[in-house]
Amino acid sequence: MLEPTMFDHNKSLEDLGEAGHFPPAFFGLVQDLPLFQELDRAQIETLARYMRAYVAREETLLFREGDFGDFVLLVVEGIIQVIKYGDNGEQQTLALLERGRTLGEMSMVDGKPRSATCIALHDSVFLVLTNWGLHALAREQPQIANRLLFNLAKELSQRLRQTTDKLVGLLGV
Amino acid sequence: MLEPTMFDHNKSLEDLGEAGHFPPAFFGLVQDLPLFQELDRAQIETLARYMRAYVAREETLLFREGDFGDFVLLVVEGIIQVIKYGDNGEQQTLALLERGRTLGEMSMVDGKPRSATCIALHDSVFLVLTNWGLHALAREQPQIANRLLFNLAKELSQRLRQTTDKLVGLLGV
Repeated sequence: MLEPTMFDHNKSLEDLGEAGHFPPAFFGLVQDLPLFQELDRAQIETLARYMRAYVAREETLLFREGDFGDFVLLVVEGIIQVIKYGDNGEQQTLALLERGRTLGEMSMVDGKPRSATCIALHDSVFLVLTNWGLHALAREQPQIANRLLFNLAKELSQRLRQTTDKLVGLLGV
Repeated sequence: MLEPTMFDHNKSLEDLGEAGHFPPAFFGLVQDLPLFQELDRAQIETLARYMRAYVAREETLLFREGDFGDFVLLVVEGIIQVIKYGDNGEQQTLALLERGRTLGEMSMVDGKPRSATCIALHDSVFLVLTNWGLHALAREQPQIANRLLFNLAKELSQRLRQTTDKLVGLLGV
């Protein structure tokens, strides 16, 4: 059901395999995350069959601004730093994403390059859903895919509100 | 299938009724809009049964920042001005949305108040989908709802990329 392991160029990442094979304790770890909102246990277990889990050691580069990549990451544990580099190489931290936040969803839905660089600041655990996995889910489990897409749109809305507020603040409206 | 007419407090808006009752020419007007991407004619006609169409005369207020409202508008014709007001009443135009763009999707998915004020600058035609309509669609036509939600997430991603770019530009990264 899942495509081959991603990230295999990256030795600081450990592939824990298909998230659907996890022991029941795994459910307790993810059931309250916003991306799974209004999905019941059976639905989350079904959804997990379309995702893989990874552990990233601290300072692991997950992806670079400008990279192509069509997967979304859901942070289960740890902290992910979102960075933009200026023309002079100076770096600015745009966000620190903790448990429950997602990253990479823009490239997953629009197919455009990554808008920022993401690094695991500490040892982190996350789930990965690819565009391919999402399409398989939509075909085979459309109700679950609907809820997931709705929750993803909610996350994007939240980020858009926050970013617009910062922009409006700077513009002095 | 549709809830009662919205906007009935607003005399500058004309309710054209359920979009699914429109003549075939209507299809030609909307088939190339991004929100309907990868939906075929039959699917767009089905989807239209969950939407209403409206005409707004120029200078019609569609909604105010802070309003509650759970519907998304798809601009078919015309121009919609998106405005933020400062504490001193000064107004700043955040965007001018033309044919094909959507507005109001954030409140539709997260249930929070409108983030900006929207006004039809010229006579405009638009389609409206409410959260209620989206949920009915998800229940009765999950494959079409999946595609619509995917396209909506794509629109939100595009807006988030644009807003982040403006913010990063102002921050001088």
